[in-house]
Amino acid sequence: EFVARVSGIATMAKLPYRETAEGLYAAFVGVPIDTGTSNRPGARFGPRQIRAESAMLRAYNSWTRAAPYESIMVADIGDINVNVYDLKDTCKRIREGYRKIVATGCIPLTMGGDHTIAYPILQAVAEKYGPVGLIHVDAHADTSDIVLGEKIGHGTPFRRCVEEGLLDCKRVAQIGLRGSGYSPDSYEWSRAQGFRVVQAEECWYKSLEPLMVEVRAQMGSGPVYLSFDIDALDPSFAPGTGTPEIAGLTTIQGLEIVRGCRGLNLVGCDLVEVSPAYDTTGNTALTAANLLFEMMCVLPKTKYYPK
Amino acid sequence: EFVARVSGIATMAKLPYRETAEGLYAAFVGVPIDTGTSNRPGARFGPRQIRAESAMLRAYNSWTRAAPYESIMVADIGDINVNVYDLKDTCKRIREGYRKIVATGCIPLTMGGDHTIAYPILQAVAEKYGPVGLIHVDAHADTSDIVLGEKIGHGTPFRRCVEEGLLDCKRVAQIGLRGSGYSPDSYEWSRAQGFRVVQAEECWYKSLEPLMVEVRAQMGSGPVYLSFDIDALDPSFAPGTGTPEIAGLTTIQGLEIVRGCRGLNLVGCDLVEVSPAYDTTGNTALTAANLLFEMMCVLPKTKYYPK
Amino acid sequence: EFVARVSGIATMAKLPYRETAEGLYAAFVGVPIDTGTSNRPGARFGPRQIRAESAMLRAYNSWTRAAPYESIMVADIGDINVNVYDLKDTCKRIREGYRKIVATGCIPLTMGGDHTIAYPILQAVAEKYGPVGLIHVDAHADTSDIVLGEKIGHGTPFRRCVEEGLLDCKRVAQIGLRGSGYSPDSYEWSRAQGFRVVQAEECWYKSLEPLMVEVRAQMGSGPVYLSFDIDALDPSFAPGTGTPEIAGLTTIQGLEIVRGCRGLNLVGCDLVEVSPAYDTTGNTALTAANLLFEMMCVLPKTKYYPK
Amino acid sequence: EFVARVSGIATMAKLPYRETAEGLYAAFVGVPIDTGTSNRPGARFGPRQIRAESAMLRAYNSWTRAAPYESIMVADIGDINVNVYDLKDTCKRIREGYRKIVATGCIPLTMGGDHTIAYPILQAVAEKYGPVGLIHVDAHADTSDIVLGEKIGHGTPFRRCVEEGLLDCKRVAQIGLRGSGYSPDSYEWSRAQGFRVVQAEECWYKSLEPLMVEVRAQMGSGPVYLSFDIDALDPSFAPGTGTPEIAGLTTIQGLEIVRGCRGLNLVGCDLVEVSPAYDTTGNTALTAANLLFEMMCVLPKTKYYPK
Amino acid sequence: EFVARVSGIATMAKLPYRETAEGLYAAFVGVPIDTGTSNRPGARFGPRQIRAESAMLRAYNSWTRAAPYESIMVADIGDINVNVYDLKDTCKRIREGYRKIVATGCIPLTMGGDHTIAYPILQAVAEKYGPVGLIHVDAHADTSDIVLGEKIGHGTPFRRCVEEGLLDCKRVAQIGLRGSGYSPDSYEWSRAQGFRVVQAEECWYKSLEPLMVEVRAQMGSGPVYLSFDIDALDPSFAPGTGTPEIAGLTTIQGLEIVRGCRGLNLVGCDLVEVSPAYDTTGNTALTAANLLFEMMCVLPKTKYYPK
Amino acid sequence: EFVARVSGIATMAKLPYRETAEGLYAAFVGVPIDTGTSNRPGARFGPRQIRAESAMLRAYNSWTRAAPYESIMVADIGDINVNVYDLKDTCKRIREGYRKIVATGCIPLTMGGDHTIAYPILQAVAEKYGPVGLIHVDAHADTSDIVLGEKIGHGTPFRRCVEEGLLDCKRVAQIGLRGSGYSPDSYEWSRAQGFRVVQAEECWYKSLEPLMVEVRAQMGSGPVYLSFDIDALDPSFAPGTGTPEIAGLTTIQGLEIVRGCRGLNLVGCDLVEVSPAYDTTGNTALTAANLLFEMMCVLPKTKYYPK
Ligand SMILES: [Mn+2]
Ligand SMILES: [Mn+2]
Ligand SMILES: [Mn+2]
Ligand SMILES: [Mn+2]
Ligand SMILES: [Mn+2]
Ligand SMILES: [Mn+2]
Ligand SMILES: [Mn+2]
Ligand SMILES: [Mn+2]
Ligand SMILES: [Mn+2]
Ligand SMILES: [Mn+2]
Ligand SMILES: [Mn+2]
Ligand SMILES: [Mn+2]
Repeated sequence: EFVARVSGIATMAKLPYRETAEGLYAAFVGVPIDTGTSNRPGARFGPRQIRAESAMLRAYNSWTRAAPYESIMVADIGDINVNVYDLKDTCKRIREGYRKIVATGCIPLTMGGDHTIAYPILQAVAEKYGPVGLIHVDAHADTSDIVLGEKIGHGTPFRRCVEEGLLDCKRVAQIGLRGSGYSPDSYEWSRAQGFRVVQAEECWYKSLEPLMVEVRAQMGSGPVYLSFDIDALDPSFAPGTGTPEIAGLTTIQGLEIVRGCRGLNLVGCDLVEVSPAYDTTGNTALTAANLLFEMMCVLPKTKYYPK
Repeated sequence: EFVARVSGIATMAKLPYRETAEGLYAAFVGVPIDTGTSNRPGARFGPRQIRAESAMLRAYNSWTRAAPYESIMVADIGDINVNVYDLKDTCKRIREGYRKIVATGCIPLTMGGDHTIAYPILQAVAEKYGPVGLIHVDAHADTSDIVLGEKIGHGTPFRRCVEEGLLDCKRVAQIGLRGSGYSPDSYEWSRAQGFRVVQAEECWYKSLEPLMVEVRAQMGSGPVYLSFDIDALDPSFAPGTGTPEIAGLTTIQGLEIVRGCRGLNLVGCDLVEVSPAYDTTGNTALTAANLLFEMMCVLPKTKYYPK
Repeated sequence: EFVARVSGIATMAKLPYRETAEGLYAAFVGVPIDTGTSNRPGARFGPRQIRAESAMLRAYNSWTRAAPYESIMVADIGDINVNVYDLKDTCKRIREGYRKIVATGCIPLTMGGDHTIAYPILQAVAEKYGPVGLIHVDAHADTSDIVLGEKIGHGTPFRRCVEEGLLDCKRVAQIGLRGSGYSPDSYEWSRAQGFRVVQAEECWYKSLEPLMVEVRAQMGSGPVYLSFDIDALDPSFAPGTGTPEIAGLTTIQGLEIVRGCRGLNLVGCDLVEVSPAYDTTGNTALTAANLLFEMMCVLPKTKYYPK
Repeated sequence: EFVARVSGIATMAKLPYRETAEGLYAAFVGVPIDTGTSNRPGARFGPRQIRAESAMLRAYNSWTRAAPYESIMVADIGDINVNVYDLKDTCKRIREGYRKIVATGCIPLTMGGDHTIAYPILQAVAEKYGPVGLIHVDAHADTSDIVLGEKIGHGTPFRRCVEEGLLDCKRVAQIGLRGSGYSPDSYEWSRAQGFRVVQAEECWYKSLEPLMVEVRAQMGSGPVYLSFDIDALDPSFAPGTGTPEIAGLTTIQGLEIVRGCRGLNLVGCDLVEVSPAYDTTGNTALTAANLLFEMMCVLPKTKYYPK
Repeated sequence: EFVARVSGIATMAKLPYRETAEGLYAAFVGVPIDTGTSNRPGARFGPRQIRAESAMLRAYNSWTRAAPYESIMVADIGDINVNVYDLKDTCKRIREGYRKIVATGCIPLTMGGDHTIAYPILQAVAEKYGPVGLIHVDAHADTSDIVLGEKIGHGTPFRRCVEEGLLDCKRVAQIGLRGSGYSPDSYEWSRAQGFRVVQAEECWYKSLEPLMVEVRAQMGSGPVYLSFDIDALDPSFAPGTGTPEIAGLTTIQGLEIVRGCRGLNLVGCDLVEVSPAYDTTGNTALTAANLLFEMMCVLPKTKYYPK
Repeated sequence: EFVARVSGIATMAKLPYRETAEGLYAAFVGVPIDTGTSNRPGARFGPRQIRAESAMLRAYNSWTRAAPYESIMVADIGDINVNVYDLKDTCKRIREGYRKIVATGCIPLTMGGDHTIAYPILQAVAEKYGPVGLIHVDAHADTSDIVLGEKIGHGTPFRRCVEEGLLDCKRVAQIGLRGSGYSPDSYEWSRAQGFRVVQAEECWYKSLEPLMVEVRAQMGSGPVYLSFDIDALDPSFAPGTGTPEIAGLTTIQGLEIVRGCRGLNLVGCDLVEVSPAYDTTGNTALTAANLLFEMMCVLPKTKYYPK
């Protein structure tokens, strides 16, 4: 029988709630923190709001013809229980939570939370799969060594990951970087590690389908993690975030990036930095819900109908 | 172990979700409709928003010393699956859903939804308990015969209830009525049925504790239903509603009314007309969540610590 | 036949629109300016928003039993066409517009617009009726000589009125004054003219019915003008205004003041300083619409049903 | 003489208000409903808000050089009086109201209201003109048979129209469709009727002028109805709507579609689904007002100055 | 010469900015943190927003006739430079910053920031003055031992202060406490320390002037610190805060408390927990600015004009 | 040492505040007026909000590699003290204030305020440099002779400038013009003066780099003033403005225009018409802050690192 969109406890995409990842091919999981945020907080409410707006999602992808629910087992497994007063302890809790999730073979589809969480998530993921390729979509490189005196925060996760050998640096692509920076060459460190850096200016006026052909080639067949900071999108599309930068990617480009991941060996995905207090219409969370749906649609075992 | 407020699927008061009322002393249930609304819609999102803001609720009542969770079994049983396109069919669905809930002996604590829902809920309740006493807190009498050409809507539920003999008219109290009206004597019909009518002007500048002494006497030991329209409160306290009227009750008076129901034979309660799109700070939903918590605290079997 | 609240061109209280005041006992008229504002602008949209929210008004006063539409002829006669770039020219235009209105004997019920407009309105009113009594409800005395270098603005109208002999100073009451001020004795000048000054602090915790008994005695049987600045109300009730001051009157007290004018020889009323951009829920405009309705209910010829 | 933008009763484009369509070449008319909405309501306030924001409109089209007011007689004829409690009855009322409008030969320019209204409007239009061509701009096909158990709602109007023979199916174009769907091939039914379906993805990065050349050819010289759901536009341009879908058309493309209708035999146009409660800046309503102005500019008899 | 309210860099009350407290009798200082917040964050922007809204403040207190700027030297000395990623380090930074301020004899008037900051501020204050009396106005006791696993946060500062002997426990009053709690007797610990606890329910419907007579007697002539959590006020007055509780104090009561501190040996004051993202009208910050102005008006050396 | 973004008095880009322009190569200066606005006011708060959101700006331009702070001396010199009640007097005050700024050789980077201010600013600039070239980015030509009966307002500044010989008309480019107009050929007067007019429609779907090559050629080596009305941008990017027009420039095009000014002899720049009350997310002000930063990056003496 039909269920009205407004009706029912708000889980992601109206999926059933499960207590653990056991038996699931993929799982939506929330990490509700914002204590790693440098400017506007509020991303702690990202998972709740994404779940609320996800009521608009239906079962099939009308363009790609993906049919996730006919092919893979997915559920909403709730949130990591974070320590709102201690960011370092929170990171430990996330790492342990994700160890349990990935141990079952389940692919986590994470709803952030600020970008700090990518670090402990990647610790767990790399512990399982070895160093992973990374497709990092963001306005910011998030590769600072120390920000405002601290090693842990949403400006440093990928520096930490590299230091710990969690990334296969030749298989890292950063897309959408822009804005003002702290040094004359803002992305020098990234390039020095072997990352491919694609600044937002290189994306202006262009379909990113050709870029994704190259990115797929770069990623090869090894395990890949997709980390999507909603601030990669222009603030006109995603105002509800903490450190917006003007002149960013379009939602269309965001979709092209996610859809362009089809065929990759994705072992985890996240969508971070949705801050509902600045999302006055709910549409940033709606965009996040759709991007997470599209991520589910490009997981290795998702079935597609022919076009 | 502790759980951060922001963490987890949003159920009412972070209670467990249950599929049915079986085995519960009381249950929070949502009825997400607004198609009975004459002015601003949006109450369909009331249950979702009340659940979200209810994350602030803790286990004990610091003033009355009620300890509900030590004494009664309560859960969130989700929402009635409504027909968003047909109000009359929705009423049937609500009636049937509540029949099942009250059949188990469970006391429903309803999160509305517009006030139309009181009619089918009282159909189910009266079918179980016979004509009930009613404490109706509202800016409006909701006793019109026909509004804008229709018999069913949020301006008519208690007229329908009287017609069907669902109310014990001598045990009905309407509190907080005010505003402009459609005839010279707006509450004539109510008084003609034997209702006690307490206009908002009679409440100005006063504690309502003395009134509630009288109301408890009026209600006696028979079954009582409490129906609380959030627009009974002044718009300064509860802006997030569809037909606000100025110069209403204070939240303090609202609490006095609910706390004043302690000792009554309550068989059901509702809190209706929260419209989140007009609740720009979330505090109307927060108020609703607190009032529902206080209703749970005055159910017959709730335990109290001595003061 | 019924008309849905949402339906139709937005006139005040869904009244007919008329091009002139000819033949009307009273007329709602808008003066959409905010160029006399010292802090937050936006009151130029006051009339439009008051009209929109006035869709909630019905025909009868459920407490006082006033039945305005059974006894007096009222319409919405639109707005004064103001000069948005020149405040002094705007004042001339208002004066001329009101001359025409009062010439017909029609009582203007003005929707502001910032409080500057009281000066040219009172020029027209006093030209017709001679010096008038004034009931001025406001957080501010609006009796400065010069504000920010200028004689004309929303902080000076009543100084100008006194200078021009438009007020019968012994019959002036200012109610609700408060906040920080520009000199040690903020209301010295008012008192020196013979005004009665009632500071907000004198109103705290009190019904204003006793005060209004005194004010009616003060006003006697001469012509009286009621000027109600919405910022007289506490910002919790009326956030949508340009120069809010904390700890103000309640809406209840506002109603008591207006209802307390019953029996006076009212020759004009205004409700000013509603600034919709700061009225995030529409409820300030709704309050204004209700206060204007209540003003119409206390006009000399409005009929009352017995209670 | 000049009239300040803020001044005056809010009619569409500051046009005169007329009680009927008699003698008009075209008429703006509101249909304030949202009871056909599946997700976020609020479109009932669409006409009121479009009128308010239309104060920005001037007399000439600075790009196309259309001069509507020099050539055609247009007015605002107010709203259809809907039944807010019964969607099916509302449809009857709309049909009857439009019968009267089209009977005079007047071209209705409709301000919605949710998309359900296209069904009864097209009943009236096809009764006058026979089966019409349709240019349907929308994120959704709105061709479901039954949604949430019901035949009438904003997801089904064009299915109903086809069933009743109101459309000339070979002359139907649907532009902007996208999002998740209820079946593997979301637009199969549309294509099966002979509709041309242009998914949003086919529009990305492209001017739609070439598409409109084809659409004009498809429409030929027969009567054409233009139905524009504001959710066809990307939520960044039109957040104020009830069922937003990401990655939609740009406002530029929306203008190209409307301007591309020049030369067609337009017999009616609508702009639907503006929901002001989600339009936090007023700019969705402003966009709607502009699109309606541009529709007026492409009516058969509108005069153009040479470029 | 006059200065327009909107004009100029936003310092508190348009006071001059000074780099240090040297030579000042009192200083406004910001502590922009929210990482001690359990629910809604955003208080980090409190100081900035309070400064913005403080443009409404004038020089004299129109009720009490205090004339602070004629008698004491005050400036805005900017903000403590906090560590947004580490709450414990932030506490150290605050303590050190306040040591320097109080060392000069200057009285800090603090703009928070969340309530965690009271702990390091009181460390510095007590180091200078010995154990102090405390007037703590709040919805919450903030005396938990451990919240969500942590010792430091906005729920624990006064527990920490007692443990370190910073408070003269017989001279502590907590006013406004309410809401749901974690144990049957929420304020047992406070009472066990000798604190006076005044629950919100004890304040309902009452002027707090009599209470303040008693509080002044309790405080005697020793050093007193005033800590005012804006959430002590009802959410209708102060929606812009992170952990609102319904049925709180009125702004009038808040003013009575602050004005009731006149004559005490105040050595520091704070106003905390203003969270601008939830302060949709700016009026919570405006209230905070006024309360801080009133605190300045009751400092020992502030001059008063006779009434 | 690091400084948290949230910390400190809000000056533009966290630059030091200076009382005068003496010794500065360039200066940020605010002109907080909106009394020249025809529709929605609020631009008076533009400078304050731009300063607040500018906390996101860092020191280097990550795309162009400009390093302004290594090469030029810049500060925030506060606001012109305007007359909020008299627009004509305000214009005099602006002219005098700018005379002092340009007299020192300092380049003003102005934060508006409505566009009226360009007229007195250009009076001062042309008095120093002779007739200047003008790059005017706007949705509107702002060349009306009289608007709503007045010569001075935000629709007329460039007409006044031409009349007074302040512009080198062959070196004027107007970019982004669009919307409905008051006459069949909206930009006829501009073209008649020799201005280059680039309508928004000519910019659709295009990089504006080629246009800027032509504009640089047009400007030559003479002094150039850049006047950027934020409403040139599409309302999706810049909703926070008073007279928005749909289908405008993208932020990307805005950046291309400003970056395309590199190499010109810029003698002044402004960014006007940011109206924070309509900027619900703060991102219009953020965009303005970034555009002003980019203007600083293209001043003649700003140093660039090689790419
Ligand atoms: Mn990031
Ligand atoms: Mn980022
Ligand atoms: Mn009701
Ligand atoms: Mn009601
Ligand atoms: Mn006033
Ligand atoms: Mn005032
Ligand atoms: Mn549609
Ligand atoms: Mn649609
Ligand atoms: Mn606290
Ligand atoms: Mn608190
Ligand atoms: Mn302009
Ligand atoms: Mn413009």
